[in-house]
Parts: sequence; structure tokens; C-alpha cells
Amino acid sequence: MGISPLTSQLCFGFGNQVDLMNSHFTIGICQIKVAGDKKENLAKARAMINEAATRGSQMVILPEMFNCLYQESLFPAFAEEYPAGPTFQMLAETAREEGIYLVGGSVPERDGPALYNSSFAFDPRGRLMARHRKAHLFDVAIAGGISFQESKTLSRGMEITVVKTALCTFGLAICYDIRFPELARLMALEGAEMIILPGAFNMTTGPAHWELLLRSRAVDNQVYLVGAAPARDLAARYLSFGHSAVVDPWGRVVARADEKETIIYAGIDLALVAKVRRELPLLHHRRTDLYELKKKQ
Amino acid sequence: MGISPLTSQLCFGFGNQVDLMNSHFTIGICQIKVAGDKKENLAKARAMINEAATRGSQMVILPEMFNCLYQESLFPAFAEEYPAGPTFQMLAETAREEGIYLVGGSVPERDGPALYNSSFAFDPRGRLMARHRKAHLFDVAIAGGISFQESKTLSRGMEITVVKTALCTFGLAICYDIRFPELARLMALEGAEMIILPGAFNMTTGPAHWELLLRSRAVDNQVYLVGAAPARDLAARYLSFGHSAVVDPWGRVVARADEKETIIYAGIDLALVAKVRRELPLLHHRRTDLYELKKKQ
Repeated sequence: MGISPLTSQLCFGFGNQVDLMNSHFTIGICQIKVAGDKKENLAKARAMINEAATRGSQMVILPEMFNCLYQESLFPAFAEEYPAGPTFQMLAETAREEGIYLVGGSVPERDGPALYNSSFAFDPRGRLMARHRKAHLFDVAIAGGISFQESKTLSRGMEITVVKTALCTFGLAICYDIRFPELARLMALEGAEMIILPGAFNMTTGPAHWELLLRSRAVDNQVYLVGAAPARDLAARYLSFGHSAVVDPWGRVVARADEKETIIYAGIDLALVAKVRRELPLLHHRRTDLYELKKKQ
Repeated sequence: MGISPLTSQLCFGFGNQVDLMNSHFTIGICQIKVAGDKKENLAKARAMINEAATRGSQMVILPEMFNCLYQESLFPAFAEEYPAGPTFQMLAETAREEGIYLVGGSVPERDGPALYNSSFAFDPRGRLMARHRKAHLFDVAIAGGISFQESKTLSRGMEITVVKTALCTFGLAICYDIRFPELARLMALEGAEMIILPGAFNMTTGPAHWELLLRSRAVDNQVYLVGAAPARDLAARYLSFGHSAVVDPWGRVVARADEKETIIYAGIDLALVAKVRRELPLLHHRRTDLYELKKKQ
């Protein structure tokens, strides 16, 4: 069927490897302990990406706000404009040098007068694949718990971000975005097999909801869910929950960090996505005659 | 403000009680071990409802298929037509006699040539408040796990069911319906403060997903989630996972059964629904400019 005898033979001879290349790959999640100094953060990120790549990651994922402490007041000074900013340069270079997909967590992004909490993702040639601007801003005031008003400083992203790569199709969202089932569902309907979520949950919502949300979005949409959090710094004003994790499409946690700085790895098996969807066809069983979910714009 | 001095005084004098009447109430969930004989099932259900009412439940909830073993082949013979069927008569009478709200789990319902998996709910005067017909039918074939094809026997419900009562507004769904976040979200948007789910998960999906789904729907929509399962009968062909549970709007399991026959109780505090929604205004933070979820028809 258009395959030359040689290719055909190679496929046969290296059957397992070919299969691995088609549906299996390894990701590394760098749970970085973010410091007050940007240069230090970029150097740390670069070193951890290098290590993750050396250990076989074809895709490396950084946490939310990996170049800036998670404090509203710091966002304006740490913000960078694409493509000139040193953070973007480092990400593009490192992706190219290592020949990996690199999802650059998130950073404060300046665009004219507006600031965004944005994730920039690069391909193995160092080219920008996608940019997601956090669409749901974290404005909460829990009695005896966390208080945070992102919308004082940041503007809202206007897009739902789904990225097609040679490895897989993934949705990209940031932290609070995970709270909204509509977003993850639309990503799955657009073909996402994995959802990548740089996120810095806190010590109120983290223990209560972080893993629950990752697992439930994975199970509902039968996708891999990758949550990439910064490590906890007990001296910081905002205490990150940490606990970066990878959840498979059946809702099993296949890799999980604690709160400390570390890199975790997971094998992604797209055949499992297909199997779960074939056996329990949730996306097919939606009652689109009773309800309708659609993207606007 | 239109309150007579007497009423005002009563309110003051019985402040706690009035408050309790307004925003607190107790529910009882009967985790019935269903047998092959319908009369036996109805007698058992009645006795358990009586006990739950005697112990202070203002609302009693039965599990999915509480009058019929969960086997497709039995549904036609066990099905009843409303209102004549003995199951409906028992439910209406018992609700009236006890003066309670009674959510009658689910039963096979006949309507002309069609069969449905339906939940009938009665008010404290024994009047039918609502009927929900399972909208998402369970058709799965998991390798090495459960295989079930509800749609061979049953027709699909055509409605999203939200019921307004003097105690609270609740959404009513059945088992597999919980898998679809669109449904729970629409219920919350229509005012549901609680979602009641008679459900008989099995030994494959139960351990993997039952509590996860109850908790995630509760957290996403900031509602109480009540899952009412039949007890496990090791001699039955279909093994129910059991584990009836009540989850609060912060995702905490406030009552939980194991797999055995039992009644569990929970206090429902509508002030907690309001508090959680005030502190973390998820329903308000939805990006309705980016996506739209609506009921069809």
C-alpha cells in the first residue's frame, strides 16, 4: 500500500521501536523552586531541562510562573515581551539544542499596556508552537485561607489552546483554567489526547482539589493530564502546593512529586487513550441532542 | 418589613430552629441489598425508609434499580407503568405517611412500548414532584472487566431534571449520567444546590471512578452530591460497588457506606453552598465569552 519493500522490512524488523515512536513517548516535568532573582530562575530552569532531556524526555514541561515568584506585585517588573525577552530566548534555544518539545510553564507576558499569565511552547527546532494566555483569572477570598486577585494586575486570555505536534495533540491551560470543565471538554473535542497544565495551587486549594481536578478532567475526557507545579518554598509569601503529577486516561496517577524541587517522568501511551475511549466511549455517548457545548468567536 | 411582631418574636425566640428549618436538613440514603423478588424488595425499601424517617431524615433517597436486580433481561418483567404500579404506590404512600421527601432511586418504567430506567420523586404529601429518565445509557465493553449494553433494552430519557422543593433545589440524574460534566453544570446553572444520583457502579468502574466523579461534580458546581447505590450481593450476576456517599460543596465526603446494606445520614447545610460560592465564585468566573453551554430543545 505505497510502502516500499525496504521500508516494509524495516518496519517488521524494528516493529517494537516503530510502535514506540508512533504512540509512546516520555515527558519530564521540572518542579522548579522559584527564587526572587530572574537570572537564577532561568539558569535553574535550563539546567533542569537539560537533565530531563538527557534522561530521555522528548517533551519537557515547566511550572506556572517559573521565572517569577507568584506575587501580583512582581508581575509588572518580571514581565517580558515576546520574542525579545530573555526567558523566551532561553526556552527557544534550549528546545533547539536538546531537540525536544518544551512547554515553558508560564511567565508574566507584556503586550502593550496589558500583562498576561502566559505559557509559550516550542518545538524541537526552537520554533514557537503555541502561546496560551490564562483565560480564567484567580480571584478568591476564602475565610481563613487564601486571598488572591489576579485580575488586579492581569488581563484575560481570549483563546482555547490546542496544539498538534508529531508526538500528540495537547491542550494547554494554566492553573485556575482547570476548574472549568467546559475548557477541558472543548480541548478533547478538538482532538486533545493530553492536557498540559502549569499550575501553582496553594495550601488551601491544593490539598483539597489539585489531584482531584487533574484526575477528574482526565477521566471525563479520557486524556492524559499533566500538572506542573513549582516546588514549595517555605520562605515565600505564596506557598505552592507542589505535587506535580501525571494522570492517565483512566484516572490513575502514574507519576507524582511531593512538594520539593524535583523532576518527575512519565511514559505517555497514546494507545491507552484509544483503548479507554474504545471501551468506554464517553465522548461518543454525550447527549448532544439534550445539551450543546461550543466555542464562541 | 412585613413581619408581624409575633412572628418576629418567634423567629428570635427560636432562632436556631428557624435557621435550621431554613438552611439545614437531614437526608438518609438507603443502601438496599436488592433481591430477585419484587415484593421482598418493596417491603425492604419501605422498612428502611421508615427507619430513616424515624431517625430524622426529611428526605430519603433509594438506590438505582432498588426493586429489580440489575440485569437487562429482568427489566421488561419488572417494569411498571406510572401511576398504577405497586412500586409507585408504595413510594407515594410511604412519603405521605412519613411526611418526607422521597427520591425513589430508580426502577424499570414502562411507557407504551418503551422501557426506561427512571427515578420518581415524591413530596411529603405523596405527590409526584419529578420523574427523571436516565439520559445516558451504559453501553460498555471493557477488556477483562465489565460488559453491559443498556440500550439493547432501554430508551433514553429526553430531559434534564431539576426539582424545586421547600428544602432545596436539586438535580436528579441516574448512574452513568454522572459521567457527563455538561449535565451537572446545567443543573447548577438552573439553580441546583444538590445533585441526587441513584447509581449502581460495578467492580471495575466503582473502585476507579465512583467517588472521584461524585467529588469532582460537587467541587466544580459547588453543590452537595448524593450517590445512592445498592448494597453488594456476592451471589448476584452484577456486583454493585455500593459505597453510597454524600459529598459537600468543597468536595469533602461527609457520609460514606461500605458495600454492605445500611442507611447513611448526612446533614445538608445550604449556607455552606452559599459560602463556598461566595469565596470561590466559580460559576461567576466561567468565560461565557469563550464558550457556551446550553440546553437544547
